[in-house]
Amino acid sequence: MPQRSGGRHTRELRPVKIQRKFVSNSAGSALISIGNTRVLCTANIEATVPQFLRDTKQGWLTAEYSMLPGATSTRTPRESTQGKQSGRTIEIQRLIGRSLRQAVDLQRLSEHTIRVDCDVIQADGGTRTAAITGACIAVYDALDSWNFNAFRGWVAAISVGIVHRELRLDLNYEEDAMADTDLNVVVLQNHGYVEIQGTAEGAPLPSERLHEMLALAQEGIETLFSFQHRALEGT
Amino acid sequence: MPQRSGGRHTRELRPVKIQRKFVSNSAGSALISIGNTRVLCTANIEATVPQFLRDTKQGWLTAEYSMLPGATSTRTPRESTQGKQSGRTIEIQRLIGRSLRQAVDLQRLSEHTIRVDCDVIQADGGTRTAAITGACIAVYDALDSWNFNAFRGWVAAISVGIVHRELRLDLNYEEDAMADTDLNVVVLQNHGYVEIQGTAEGAPLPSERLHEMLALAQEGIETLFSFQHRALEGT
Amino acid sequence: MPQRSGGRHTRELRPVKIQRKFVSNSAGSALISIGNTRVLCTANIEATVPQFLRDTKQGWLTAEYSMLPGATSTRTPRESTQGKQSGRTIEIQRLIGRSLRQAVDLQRLSEHTIRVDCDVIQADGGTRTAAITGACIAVYDALDSWNFNAFRGWVAAISVGIVHRELRLDLNYEEDAMADTDLNVVVLQNHGYVEIQGTAEGAPLPSERLHEMLALAQEGIETLFSFQHRALEGT
Amino acid sequence: MPQRSGGRHTRELRPVKIQRKFVSNSAGSALISIGNTRVLCTANIEATVPQFLRDTKQGWLTAEYSMLPGATSTRTPRESTQGKQSGRTIEIQRLIGRSLRQAVDLQRLSEHTIRVDCDVIQADGGTRTAAITGACIAVYDALDSWNFNAFRGWVAAISVGIVHRELRLDLNYEEDAMADTDLNVVVLQNHGYVEIQGTAEGAPLPSERLHEMLALAQEGIETLFSFQHRALEGT
Amino acid sequence: MPQRSGGRHTRELRPVKIQRKFVSNSAGSALISIGNTRVLCTANIEATVPQFLRDTKQGWLTAEYSMLPGATSTRTPRESTQGKQSGRTIEIQRLIGRSLRQAVDLQRLSEHTIRVDCDVIQADGGTRTAAITGACIAVYDALDSWNFNAFRGWVAAISVGIVHRELRLDLNYEEDAMADTDLNVVVLQNHGYVEIQGTAEGAPLPSERLHEMLALAQEGIETLFSFQHRALEGT
Amino acid sequence: MPQRSGGRHTRELRPVKIQRKFVSNSAGSALISIGNTRVLCTANIEATVPQFLRDTKQGWLTAEYSMLPGATSTRTPRESTQGKQSGRTIEIQRLIGRSLRQAVDLQRLSEHTIRVDCDVIQADGGTRTAAITGACIAVYDALDSWNFNAFRGWVAAISVGIVHRELRLDLNYEEDAMADTDLNVVVLQNHGYVEIQGTAEGAPLPSERLHEMLALAQEGIETLFSFQHRALEGT
Repeated sequence: MPQRSGGRHTRELRPVKIQRKFVSNSAGSALISIGNTRVLCTANIEATVPQFLRDTKQGWLTAEYSMLPGATSTRTPRESTQGKQSGRTIEIQRLIGRSLRQAVDLQRLSEHTIRVDCDVIQADGGTRTAAITGACIAVYDALDSWNFNAFRGWVAAISVGIVHRELRLDLNYEEDAMADTDLNVVVLQNHGYVEIQGTAEGAPLPSERLHEMLALAQEGIETLFSFQHRALEGT
Repeated sequence: MPQRSGGRHTRELRPVKIQRKFVSNSAGSALISIGNTRVLCTANIEATVPQFLRDTKQGWLTAEYSMLPGATSTRTPRESTQGKQSGRTIEIQRLIGRSLRQAVDLQRLSEHTIRVDCDVIQADGGTRTAAITGACIAVYDALDSWNFNAFRGWVAAISVGIVHRELRLDLNYEEDAMADTDLNVVVLQNHGYVEIQGTAEGAPLPSERLHEMLALAQEGIETLFSFQHRALEGT
Repeated sequence: MPQRSGGRHTRELRPVKIQRKFVSNSAGSALISIGNTRVLCTANIEATVPQFLRDTKQGWLTAEYSMLPGATSTRTPRESTQGKQSGRTIEIQRLIGRSLRQAVDLQRLSEHTIRVDCDVIQADGGTRTAAITGACIAVYDALDSWNFNAFRGWVAAISVGIVHRELRLDLNYEEDAMADTDLNVVVLQNHGYVEIQGTAEGAPLPSERLHEMLALAQEGIETLFSFQHRALEGT
Repeated sequence: MPQRSGGRHTRELRPVKIQRKFVSNSAGSALISIGNTRVLCTANIEATVPQFLRDTKQGWLTAEYSMLPGATSTRTPRESTQGKQSGRTIEIQRLIGRSLRQAVDLQRLSEHTIRVDCDVIQADGGTRTAAITGACIAVYDALDSWNFNAFRGWVAAISVGIVHRELRLDLNYEEDAMADTDLNVVVLQNHGYVEIQGTAEGAPLPSERLHEMLALAQEGIETLFSFQHRALEGT
Repeated sequence: MPQRSGGRHTRELRPVKIQRKFVSNSAGSALISIGNTRVLCTANIEATVPQFLRDTKQGWLTAEYSMLPGATSTRTPRESTQGKQSGRTIEIQRLIGRSLRQAVDLQRLSEHTIRVDCDVIQADGGTRTAAITGACIAVYDALDSWNFNAFRGWVAAISVGIVHRELRLDLNYEEDAMADTDLNVVVLQNHGYVEIQGTAEGAPLPSERLHEMLALAQEGIETLFSFQHRALEGT
Repeated sequence: MPQRSGGRHTRELRPVKIQRKFVSNSAGSALISIGNTRVLCTANIEATVPQFLRDTKQGWLTAEYSMLPGATSTRTPRESTQGKQSGRTIEIQRLIGRSLRQAVDLQRLSEHTIRVDCDVIQADGGTRTAAITGACIAVYDALDSWNFNAFRGWVAAISVGIVHRELRLDLNYEEDAMADTDLNVVVLQNHGYVEIQGTAEGAPLPSERLHEMLALAQEGIETLFSFQHRALEGT
């Protein structure tokens, strides 16, 4: 059986660390580390909504994602100097936005928008799932600081892959590059799936393996929920 | 039980029609209609590959998707006049590209790129899955006209949704807007899932329902495979 | 005398076919074929006008033109992915807009804008004149469906060129590339010229030949008027 | 009969003045004034050609046109700050480029490109025709300073309009705004028409009037040729 | 001692010439020549202010700077065709704007904005300082033509450089390219420094030399003030 | 005398903290805190140079600067979503680049480019000077890790302002907003000024005060040099 880097078990997460309130100018913020992946998440609230929600009393949540140039071993060109965001960036930030909207009761935001920003400081696989998991804490704190009673529940996310026919939880960059199939799962605690995105760039996925993958993802996400709760309590 | 429009059964596809070789200037093309959704798909081949594939002998496939302005009941602004593609467009065309790459043995393209274009002429829900299903025929014909022996198998796609707690196959626009959960499934015939994208914008999805949805999608996709085969035979 | 492709006479149009109401989501639409050139034209109406017409009771008409990527024998890059429209596209859509504004009594639109879209599905020369001729039908139907009594008259357009010193009506792509001079003429039925655009990329044009060219264009346009009328009647 | 501003006759040009070699850093340059319209024209030559002319020995000529912000009575926003050129600018600079290419024997440029720039310093109607007429001198001088024996002949341009049913030569801004029809004519001396662009924004143009307009334009252009010759001989 | 071009003394300005009211369509304008550097400056006033000044009664002044393509010995690409302004352009126009705001009492503009445009017709070093000096006249005249009593005083600017260890006033292009240090100084007459921008691209600048440079700049600026006054009085 | 926030003396820096090697994927990196201002600086090296340095054996250094959206008390819109960098950003990153080029002997880089990225995580005034001071450490480490013996000396930067007629070192955001004059000074240790940028947005600056300001800046910069040295030693 191929050895995972760091001697990690196939069903094991990398070490998780969450530093809450990392940026004092934002209403909520967290720096989340999952192994060598580190993402800075901030959440801010504005008294405005998109056009399609005017006069509905509802609120909205939108997310932006970016890779800092120094986060990757080969420097990533800055999107602002290229005049546009890459397809990958846009795909990821739409996923983050949809996922976190499930954590919030938008009806209770009385035409405010939560703006989430996820900036990757160091990338080693799983940046989008780390971003969702960390940003949920920033959203919680932002709602709290504005006295909105609108937090519906915890949302966390993890990836599961198939590498050399073996299921593995929480792929790092090297494993992700070798994987036949990569599945990102987002769950709202006690409710169910919020997003499932499975991509078989290597080889198509037989349906029986999908069920195993979902079960393994669920295990990892339960662990992430406990890290989120601990971050709230204060450690 | 809520009546579906047109008296359609919940497990039934809308009427499917495929007009092969609709555009004579493209190496492959098809106009696919699924209900009132109509997508024009073309495939062309160029003797070039992206930077990262130079000198690998491999080929590539890339896809672009666009909504013609008149395709929607309220006119859709043209992306070329706005200077950029929307997030939705980018997300969809990346999905189409990843899906169709599974239909092709890229090793056998000796540094050629297949360029797929999907332009929606009339939109009534399910444009991305119709695009994948129709474009697979255009890709088949383009490979044939260039004498590349590189077609791996048929790829088709369908959506399944939960509307008022009821599973429904192949949502039209009106149903899609009401759905709690929307699942797009892409399959490579005789191999398995190529993409699974489930989004719970309305309410999170319990895991047992996911399995039912996947089974229903599989049924619909089998029917689409038979339409693809018939289109090839000539009708 | 050089033979024209398809044995066509120098003073003869290519076969013309107009499919009215091709797109059900648009207020007016037509798919026009002139030889191998096919253009999908849609017209929609919005209850708004540009800044300079606010509070004048007048309306406006604006047009956009685009070449679908698969329409040309070498694929045309999509303008939305390049971030801007080409000079050729802009020049053509301004011509279409100016031409069709003559078909409409803008005073009677009470601050509505007609938005015309012309998308070339297959290109073989004469796409701009086909677009004007086909879009006039879409405009007619759009006005009708909104109950605006504002149609002033039929507008149609054709090209005439000089190829090997010989006048030819309705150049196809191959002839256009060989032509010394190319003249596009737009006429409002029973009124006169709406636009005349003559370009001598090859050799300057003596004034006596200009008069012959205009006369030949007029013949071709009269035939196009009869196709427009027939499309209305229903054949 | 309506009086023209400045007591000018309907068949009379405004005062013309050409200052040759106005910009010492350009290979050729001229500041042309026609009435209150003033355009700074420069021409420079680069040892490169567009992609489609590589290895053909041929050269090319391309033109750019711009309105300086202070040139109009209401300031014109700068296109560089808006990130793109307007449709009007693009249409005009394509006309200037096509027109001046007729003044040059491109076969004799051995893969060099002439780059013409026309910047309007003060605008009072007829800027595009003034630009063509003035830039032809800059092109002449640029060819001379590079010792290219490639000047084919003089190109000049003028507008003719119909204002209150009356033909008028060389419309100023006020007349242009009132005109029913506006015709821009470009001629290569001793050869014939290079471009004819007639637009009936007000009322369609009967064909007999077109012939009168062309004759009047020819008169005006002959006068412009004599100004060009004098500029060459002179100070 | 290295000879300066044109036999100029190290503490001497190049010949200065100011043509006031060069563009009749602008509220204020001046064409300033300093040696071979020539900049066309216009000032216009609009009854609007940026968002952050709404309802403050204050006004604003903003500046834009551009190099005409033919102004340099190798043609400068036009920023409007490249879709954005260069970093150098942006840096310069921000300097011009900040400098000229000191010439105006913004409190007295009752929510109007002065828009300054500086277009370089011929470049030979010192374009940004010439622009400031010339544009101040255009601003004066624009305020006058709108009857705003808001001119606070004259602003002028000059560069001083160290070339081969020698201080030189008013560097031309050739000297600027050789300079170790380049200092641009902007002064409001009788008040003091408005901007000081010193850049040591070659070698760092010892502090004692900075004081000498500032003194020399002051001398040059006093001369420029007298040219500004003469332009006002005279021809 | 007005009390400074935190009881700080007018000639005193805010607390300084430098975390070296904060990002493991970059060749050099540092997180610098000066009071509440925190900037993440990374430096990476690429084996390429800009066009104008090809075949010169020289290297280059270029810098980019960005404000993370959550860094300011009102969220700053992301420049990548707006399609371009602001004028302020461009001005700052050009300053950082020019300053750090003085820290490096570009002759010894044999056609490599150092790419510096400064991302502001929390903003409270003085972000550009903190960026220069912190990035110099990242540059040092990047050179070291690539074994380039090209570090010329330490570069550090600080601001001095005049607030209520009083000189103050190292302005925070609140003080900066009240300042009449703001001076940014960049020094190369033991050599002299690299950049001096003084701006009098409030009131022009008499020349005698400039000298005092420069002396105070020098004091602050000496302190910063000692922090840089300590960061190198390891604390």
